[in-house]
Amino acid sequence: MTTRDIDENVRAELNRLRESIDNIDAAVVHMLAERFKCTQQVGRLKAQHHLPPADPDREARQIERLRQLAESARLDPAFAEKLLNFIIAEVIRHHETIAADPDVAPRR
Amino acid sequence: MTTRDIDENVRAELNRLRESIDNIDAAVVHMLAERFKCTQQVGRLKAQHHLPPADPDREARQIERLRQLAESARLDPAFAEKLLNFIIAEVIRHHETIAADPDVAPRR
Repeated sequence: MTTRDIDENVRAELNRLRESIDNIDAAVVHMLAERFKCTQQVGRLKAQHHLPPADPDREARQIERLRQLAESARLDPAFAEKLLNFIIAEVIRHHETIAADPDVAPRR
Repeated sequence: MTTRDIDENVRAELNRLRESIDNIDAAVVHMLAERFKCTQQVGRLKAQHHLPPADPDREARQIERLRQLAESARLDPAFAEKLLNFIIAEVIRHHETIAADPDVAPRR
């Protein structure tokens, strides 16, 4: 096997893996779009009924559950927790926007 | 409708939405576990063939593609970009670990 062969094989394998990564990323983007549709509804409900945007008890349960799911999927639980916190921070920002003007139905 | 009825209806609707959010989060965790399996393989390939852990051209293409996907899914493109950068930072950290010892097959 020449260096050129190795390069081509490596390149082909890299492309194969990257195509899978791109497919997964597209799936994740669409799952998160659906998730934000749900949290927008939660935000509107909370604003209409004067519930606080953040819910620390709910968040603690979500984090504990996701850490367990991550563990069983062999994903770093600390990474899963950081990721959920990252998403929740965005959601709370949305809830605060909705609470400031509950008649607004923002696209995000 | 009494205040109590409203509270129960709101609570039921909130629970319904939260069940969907939890289902989506479980799906995302499993997609990301699969994504890290792919990037672990990429990391090993790169380490074996002495390719650099980061690939700025590839990352720029990924970000542009994901921003477009997010836009069509009505997800904030800036959020999708921040999320991908967050995930890529974790991946590069893994690649550097593998590059430091390519014989190691870490669980993450």
